[in-house]
Amino acid sequence: MTNWGRICAERLNALARVSEPGPGVTRLPFTPEHAAVLDLLRGWMAEAGLTHHLDDAGTLVGRHVGDGRKGTFYIGSHQDSVREGGAFDGIMGIVLAIAALQKLKDEGASPDCPVEVLAFADEEGVRWPTALVGSRAVAGTVDPAVLDMTDRDGVTLRAAMEEFGLAPERIGKIARDPATALGYLECHIEQGPVLEQADVPLGVVTAICGIERHVVTLTGETGHAGTLPMATRRDALVGAAALVAEVDRLAQETEGLRATVGELHVAPNVVNAVPRDVRLTVELRAPDDAMREEASRHLQDFAHRVTGNRGVDCDMQRSYRQPAQPCEPLLTNALARAVGISTGRTALRLPSGATHDASAMADLCPISMMFVRCRNGVSHTPDEHVSREDLEHAVEALSTFLAQMT
Amino acid sequence: MTNWGRICAERLNALARVSEPGPGVTRLPFTPEHAAVLDLLRGWMAEAGLTHHLDDAGTLVGRHVGDGRKGTFYIGSHQDSVREGGAFDGIMGIVLAIAALQKLKDEGASPDCPVEVLAFADEEGVRWPTALVGSRAVAGTVDPAVLDMTDRDGVTLRAAMEEFGLAPERIGKIARDPATALGYLECHIEQGPVLEQADVPLGVVTAICGIERHVVTLTGETGHAGTLPMATRRDALVGAAALVAEVDRLAQETEGLRATVGELHVAPNVVNAVPRDVRLTVELRAPDDAMREEASRHLQDFAHRVTGNRGVDCDMQRSYRQPAQPCEPLLTNALARAVGISTGRTALRLPSGATHDASAMADLCPISMMFVRCRNGVSHTPDEHVSREDLEHAVEALSTFLAQMT
Repeated sequence: MTNWGRICAERLNALARVSEPGPGVTRLPFTPEHAAVLDLLRGWMAEAGLTHHLDDAGTLVGRHVGDGRKGTFYIGSHQDSVREGGAFDGIMGIVLAIAALQKLKDEGASPDCPVEVLAFADEEGVRWPTALVGSRAVAGTVDPAVLDMTDRDGVTLRAAMEEFGLAPERIGKIARDPATALGYLECHIEQGPVLEQADVPLGVVTAICGIERHVVTLTGETGHAGTLPMATRRDALVGAAALVAEVDRLAQETEGLRATVGELHVAPNVVNAVPRDVRLTVELRAPDDAMREEASRHLQDFAHRVTGNRGVDCDMQRSYRQPAQPCEPLLTNALARAVGISTGRTALRLPSGATHDASAMADLCPISMMFVRCRNGVSHTPDEHVSREDLEHAVEALSTFLAQMT
Repeated sequence: MTNWGRICAERLNALARVSEPGPGVTRLPFTPEHAAVLDLLRGWMAEAGLTHHLDDAGTLVGRHVGDGRKGTFYIGSHQDSVREGGAFDGIMGIVLAIAALQKLKDEGASPDCPVEVLAFADEEGVRWPTALVGSRAVAGTVDPAVLDMTDRDGVTLRAAMEEFGLAPERIGKIARDPATALGYLECHIEQGPVLEQADVPLGVVTAICGIERHVVTLTGETGHAGTLPMATRRDALVGAAALVAEVDRLAQETEGLRATVGELHVAPNVVNAVPRDVRLTVELRAPDDAMREEASRHLQDFAHRVTGNRGVDCDMQRSYRQPAQPCEPLLTNALARAVGISTGRTALRLPSGATHDASAMADLCPISMMFVRCRNGVSHTPDEHVSREDLEHAVEALSTFLAQMT
């Protein structure tokens, strides 16, 4: 019996060797490393009986023709990594999809319907300040203005794509017809500790969390830390501390909500001066938009009330908002059954706190996602790791799921 | 009748014009500005009937010979400012002392005992990373090793003093005999809002607060703000926020204690990463060492307990300690009587949260301090201001006090 876990691990090793020099994996879009990875993927796609072509957004499309009907099911992920990242984030989903289709072909159990494996060029947005270009192109939502963005060497996305042999002026023509898009499945490492703590290899995603970010500016008054009496102080950091504590308390007590003050700057920031200004960020994520919006309103009220009580001025501006993307229940239930068969246990369901290509594909068709346990819950580091056993479970679950596509 | 408030205001204006270019007053020790200020002070000392000489630490000493007995009373302050500071911090105490002695001479009421006005060169410690050199030399506690410190242009304190015409190798010979030092009085702007809020021009200092400083390092674990569940987080900033709040609460509820987290740094300090490390400072000041030490123990216990509860490691290291210096009750009571006569109100007594030359002089003799109300309680800024009326009150109080010196 073929050991798909071992095969996938070996393929991921081979892909990880295609990296810029330095620790871990650094593989940016439209680079020699990207080209080298595409060559490896093309070979494995051919082994799996898939035809393949590179679209004008740099997405390698491997197609199982099936019964040739008009509708197509999509399964994909991204080939790129962050700088000094790991060997699994993104690219594992491509390797597993190809393996699952090859397994089904070997067993004579290929799905009836057409299936396309999509290997997107750029999800991380490391080289240019945009992301999801390949999946947005497929979904028909890409903004051609992004082609004029420059990387740190001044190279535009357009020029890099042309150098890579693509015709970026045709990026608008990649869009698929929603009427023929049956659905999308993405398999990704969890990037968190939930599966590891539950001692299960696979999980089924219920929704991709919505995100909102705020920049909070607290303005008090500085003064000499020795001579300014406590009662008259307008200490911006004391006000900020109350807000940091409340952000944490609210999320600890609200199932599903994640809330983080990740960035905080103090001025003048010296040992013997009362802090005058604090600038901090609040990020909220939730699988349910109403939950996130209620948390946002609560924190805005709290921030103004608690700082006002201390004579500190508070300005809280929302800098970013992205709605939650629920996964399609029919696909999710089918995936959960496949995960259950592969693992012998009821599938664990969890939200995705991170954004994925699936977020963009949701504009085209129903989406679903499967998470694979990653060691210590870490991602975006050379320490990323998925065991061979878990890769084997993932190939089994994906092939079981795809075999049902009739 | 001579308007000493107006005269002192004019003298302080003339001194403020002696500054490096730029906003406010910048007058560092052993510079052309320092030399120019000494010329002005020498002229006014002569008017007041004082002999004068420059000692080898750069302190201008103006002496009222009195009855020529061996014991001497000292009254002084510092000529230097911070960069872009004001026209009052430090130098006002010298101007007022000279004016008070001139007023007594004019009135034929000069003190019987010898009195020396001490105009110290360097209290702020802006140019070299040391301070109180002149007062420590007089008190006999100066460390000759400081002479080798360099300013930001690489000039040693020794070289700057020699260039200024001094013989720094003789700095150890300046020390006065404690047996003949009757006491020391320093008059300074409050650098805080207490007198202004109480609507009184003058205050009498009970003690110079002791100071201790701690560097607290909190170490948790970072992770993706979207994928790391709240319950498993070890967020260093959430731990730090609890400590910031407790530092403030303790001082708000402990009469006389001032406690400040002035400096705080977060790593990695990005919007979508859970904070891994926080480094912050805690500064405690109190007029009573036992109170300060109890607060210190409480905060250390709290920091370890509250961070331990969150899985955050806490290291709290004391980086600085300076004991409180109580003012001498006999001098303080005499000063309070003089302040009462000048202002027509019972003198307000308050601790000094800031360090002064008096802190060093305490090693030589009993000390006392008088504070003058400053507008909005600010110092170390071009906005420093003392009204002519308050300067007049101060000259009256000082002359009343000095007239009692028999």
